[in-house]
Amino acid sequence: MPKSAIVLTSGGLDSATCLAIARDQGFAPLYAMTFDYGQRHHHELRAAELIARSMNVVEHRLVTIDLRQFGASALTADIAVPHDQVDQPGIPITYVPARNTIFLSYALAWAEVLKISDVFIGVNAVDFSGYPDCRPVFIQAFQAAARAGTTLDNFTIHAPLLHLSKAQIIQLGHRLGVDFSLTHSCYDPAPDGRACGHCDSCLLRRRGFAQAGVADPTRYIA
Amino acid sequence: MPKSAIVLTSGGLDSATCLAIARDQGFAPLYAMTFDYGQRHHHELRAAELIARSMNVVEHRLVTIDLRQFGASALTADIAVPHDQVDQPGIPITYVPARNTIFLSYALAWAEVLKISDVFIGVNAVDFSGYPDCRPVFIQAFQAAARAGTTLDNFTIHAPLLHLSKAQIIQLGHRLGVDFSLTHSCYDPAPDGRACGHCDSCLLRRRGFAQAGVADPTRYIA
Repeated sequence: MPKSAIVLTSGGLDSATCLAIARDQGFAPLYAMTFDYGQRHHHELRAAELIARSMNVVEHRLVTIDLRQFGASALTADIAVPHDQVDQPGIPITYVPARNTIFLSYALAWAEVLKISDVFIGVNAVDFSGYPDCRPVFIQAFQAAARAGTTLDNFTIHAPLLHLSKAQIIQLGHRLGVDFSLTHSCYDPAPDGRACGHCDSCLLRRRGFAQAGVADPTRYIA
Repeated sequence: MPKSAIVLTSGGLDSATCLAIARDQGFAPLYAMTFDYGQRHHHELRAAELIARSMNVVEHRLVTIDLRQFGASALTADIAVPHDQVDQPGIPITYVPARNTIFLSYALAWAEVLKISDVFIGVNAVDFSGYPDCRPVFIQAFQAAARAGTTLDNFTIHAPLLHLSKAQIIQLGHRLGVDFSLTHSCYDPAPDGRACGHCDSCLLRRRGFAQAGVADPTRYIA
């Protein structure tokens, strides 16, 4: 009997590829969970909906949480999104404190209610932005906490993109049939949804498509 | 220089005692965080406000989160609160999936923004209701995950009530000047806020006051 899984689905290309990987590994049915956390790149919520539908998830849960109350990030407070700075050292201002911890906690609550022991998250420790909650050591530690704190047997966090470059993720997603035109990565999009082309996320995405040799369907402003 | 701390404050007597312990240990200023998670015993939110004020916290943050969407608990779904069953084996229906994981995740986000490394939580592994997320192994594991997933140095979860009986908690709180008349424990209160006297939480509270030899200021229906 196939096992169900919950896939955290942001609307970006990483989590879309994660959904495709879960499907390819035989997990069924799939549940998608998306967070409206007051992010300025609100377009990704619509993208998440389109992606979840394209992957035939059995249920797509949108959870509204208020991370704006904590501010302190260019994604959730009135702080400008930096442009053309992706290779700077240190943790960038787009880091949202404890974001993945909160996301995984909600996934855990849903998993426990549904009695599902498998959760997929598209974190990545190679072409990432230096966020501490994207590191393998964090994923392992959260899994241990989740096992200790719930009634679930063998709760497992799958992070299949952890050690892949952005180009490798794009090649894998492409092979598994992900429609990247549905995905949204930009932190600072135009009102019509076009990508700025210069925030961390756009720079990583653009470079990834170029290196992967896959056509980039993104509509960029510049 | 004194260190700040965040204290999770539910409105119950355990967390009120936790606030008093943090104050007694010299943590200052204190921040209180309370969750409106759709719990049926909504009276505890007003209690939390009164307690936080009585302890002179510098800021009391009320976080609204929707755990009703997950249901599956007598505290958040349309399931009757059991009466007179506190010593039954197993995990009771009042267990809210992943509740403490979610609470601690939000505390962690606030801690990271405020650069505070100390969080107090009034979980208890003696006179508790058998919830997996109240066990020492969970608290330790969550602390490890929090250290791995944030920029905070030496993030520490203080759970000073972990190994105390309810009677010992009441004696300690009494000695530290907690005004228990402000606290609310009942899962199934009357519309006017009086305690039912028969849910798990009332039974533990009543027995605790009796064993502690401290006068119980609670207004019970029966």
